[in-house]
Amino acid sequence: MEWIKGGVTAPKGFLCSGLRSGIKRWARDLGLLYSEVPAAAAALFTKSRLKGAPLLVTQEHLRGGRLQAVVVNSGNANCCTGPRGLLDARRMTRLTALALRIPERRVAVCSTGAIGVYLPMGRIERKIQLLVPDLSRQKNLEFAEAIMTTDKKIKEAAVAFKMGRSQGILGAVCKGSGMIYPRLATMLCFITTDVAVERKLLQSLLGRVGEATFNRITVDGDTSPNDTVLLFANGVAGNPRIASAATKSFRQFEKALHHVMEKLSKKIVADGEGATQVAEITVTHAKSDEEALQACRFVANSSLVKTALFGRDPNWGRIAASVGASGVSFLPEKLSVALGEVWLFRKGTPVVSGNHRFKRFFQQHPLKIRIDLGAGRGHASMWTCDLTEEYVRINAHYRT
Amino acid sequence: MEWIKGGVTAPKGFLCSGLRSGIKRWARDLGLLYSEVPAAAAALFTKSRLKGAPLLVTQEHLRGGRLQAVVVNSGNANCCTGPRGLLDARRMTRLTALALRIPERRVAVCSTGAIGVYLPMGRIERKIQLLVPDLSRQKNLEFAEAIMTTDKKIKEAAVAFKMGRSQGILGAVCKGSGMIYPRLATMLCFITTDVAVERKLLQSLLGRVGEATFNRITVDGDTSPNDTVLLFANGVAGNPRIASAATKSFRQFEKALHHVMEKLSKKIVADGEGATQVAEITVTHAKSDEEALQACRFVANSSLVKTALFGRDPNWGRIAASVGASGVSFLPEKLSVALGEVWLFRKGTPVVSGNHRFKRFFQQHPLKIRIDLGAGRGHASMWTCDLTEEYVRINAHYRT
Repeated sequence: MEWIKGGVTAPKGFLCSGLRSGIKRWARDLGLLYSEVPAAAAALFTKSRLKGAPLLVTQEHLRGGRLQAVVVNSGNANCCTGPRGLLDARRMTRLTALALRIPERRVAVCSTGAIGVYLPMGRIERKIQLLVPDLSRQKNLEFAEAIMTTDKKIKEAAVAFKMGRSQGILGAVCKGSGMIYPRLATMLCFITTDVAVERKLLQSLLGRVGEATFNRITVDGDTSPNDTVLLFANGVAGNPRIASAATKSFRQFEKALHHVMEKLSKKIVADGEGATQVAEITVTHAKSDEEALQACRFVANSSLVKTALFGRDPNWGRIAASVGASGVSFLPEKLSVALGEVWLFRKGTPVVSGNHRFKRFFQQHPLKIRIDLGAGRGHASMWTCDLTEEYVRINAHYRT
Repeated sequence: MEWIKGGVTAPKGFLCSGLRSGIKRWARDLGLLYSEVPAAAAALFTKSRLKGAPLLVTQEHLRGGRLQAVVVNSGNANCCTGPRGLLDARRMTRLTALALRIPERRVAVCSTGAIGVYLPMGRIERKIQLLVPDLSRQKNLEFAEAIMTTDKKIKEAAVAFKMGRSQGILGAVCKGSGMIYPRLATMLCFITTDVAVERKLLQSLLGRVGEATFNRITVDGDTSPNDTVLLFANGVAGNPRIASAATKSFRQFEKALHHVMEKLSKKIVADGEGATQVAEITVTHAKSDEEALQACRFVANSSLVKTALFGRDPNWGRIAASVGASGVSFLPEKLSVALGEVWLFRKGTPVVSGNHRFKRFFQQHPLKIRIDLGAGRGHASMWTCDLTEEYVRINAHYRT
């Protein structure tokens, strides 16, 4: 397996484009991703009870099992926009389908940005048609830019991998910087592959890999109503269609998907709004894996832990306090906390008392925080970032 | 019922003192509250599984049912300090008991401040004896200062109220500014009354009133291992002992306790670390009161809602998104959100779309945010504050 360039258009048969429609003032905000042939499609959506209008339309179109394109806008989430929002989302897929001359049910739609504002459909309608003549294998960065909101960096990845005698390519792009929380991170992610995979298998695989990657990161503990991951497998590579999880090709494909999704999820945390530090929280010896994850989530979302990381303060006391508040089972006299290789708190007793500064620890990426509950065999990890004044600035003045 | 001055020493028979022991660099950090006669005592403690050493000692001494004094230090929580921390907490009660010439089991101890640092017992031991000659009814502000950490304001309250032919007085002081979350807020609170109340009745009442007041506030969603509320009822007022919840005196006492605890809990939010705004989140028509409270908690702890309040941004979209993520039952098309008197989102549709600024709304105290789920008859309220750059500064550099 080898990392390659090209992002979402690295696999064969995918084209994309991105342009400015005027939703955002100074940046690209409308993008189109297109597969030359219909692709088996799988998806993950936000667990929020409130779902943006585009999600409802995409879910409906997904029932056909095959997608060929997704139209995306940033700067406006088309969420909490009532019946009009739903009409607007449908209109976006209809116009895209007309311009591409494909059935409307093969077009997905995603929106990301401010909630509760109607889309400026006049502008969008005029620009959707311009996306089609612009489609190209070289426009991956333009598409990546068009889906960004507060992201500072373009987040894409692609790998080439062997599958028996043939070669598969898998590429992806995502956006996400704030409102990032495990179920799903607030994000859009588009994954493309030229490998042929049976659709149900693709869906169950995406769910499993998503659980281990995107669902293990947090920026601010907020879950968005618009989170969507779409995976297109168009089969252009010409491999025998992967139809069983018991094959070697499936395992190779799974490995590639896991690597790409893990890489992107870590990029999201590193580009978390205002973030200056990334930390990997690992909980071991919990009563169960579920309790380990619950403790991870509490620590990873604690404002006090996150501000201490920003202040380069090795404040294991706040970490212990957060584990205590998480509700998981443990005996205080068996609790241990390590920063990097150094156990600062071991079986209920401080190893080093006080304010020692850990200069070298805070230069690591990611910072490794380990919590041993001494209560069983469960374990889990999660990625988070620090909470900074910049995060507050970005989110206090997001709309001004 | 009438608000009076004097805080924790307003009721008859209570004295206190506070001085500098050197745990903190520039402020009082050691205090003593004393009742001239043994008092019936009730208490609430943190729900964290991790409990500071002082809590364990206080819980043990509470088993006797009567307390006469509490010694408190700030600047150091004596938490996560293993067996040595427990010895130190016991030593604090023993020295206090010796100086006061009362049994050790009548002395409670509380500590608040940094976690995981051993107490500087040498300094504390020398100063504990000086607390006793200093005891006075006029030292309520010195005691209040001695229990503060990042608090900017002294938080005390007292009321005088009629009970049949006699008069009762109830006073209280509390500290709490960060690590504030419903189960309990990170806080210490000492409540005194000269009314005679049966101990079990006192405990059940304190639990109920705490649920409706201190458990309905949040600053940052973190729960501390040291939260303690202690209530002393010394009976010096000479009223017939309240022994049943079915009496008029009980109801008058309950009302006084509720008013004082509510006032203090709101003072905690208003003095939340870095806070510039206080908001009251009310959820109505939830499936149940529990679900209403769950939705309240999610919204009240959402970093995105709290930064929007700081930015004076009437961002009801983030409120709706947070309700969606809270896991409570509702249909998106029945969800409504109001800021003050104005419904911005009604039954799934924006009433006013976009960025309208609500200057007058943001001048109110508290800001009133209403969420109608349209799903049942449950309702709940909760108080929170905004998330500011100052909060991050305070907590990033707490120990530097």
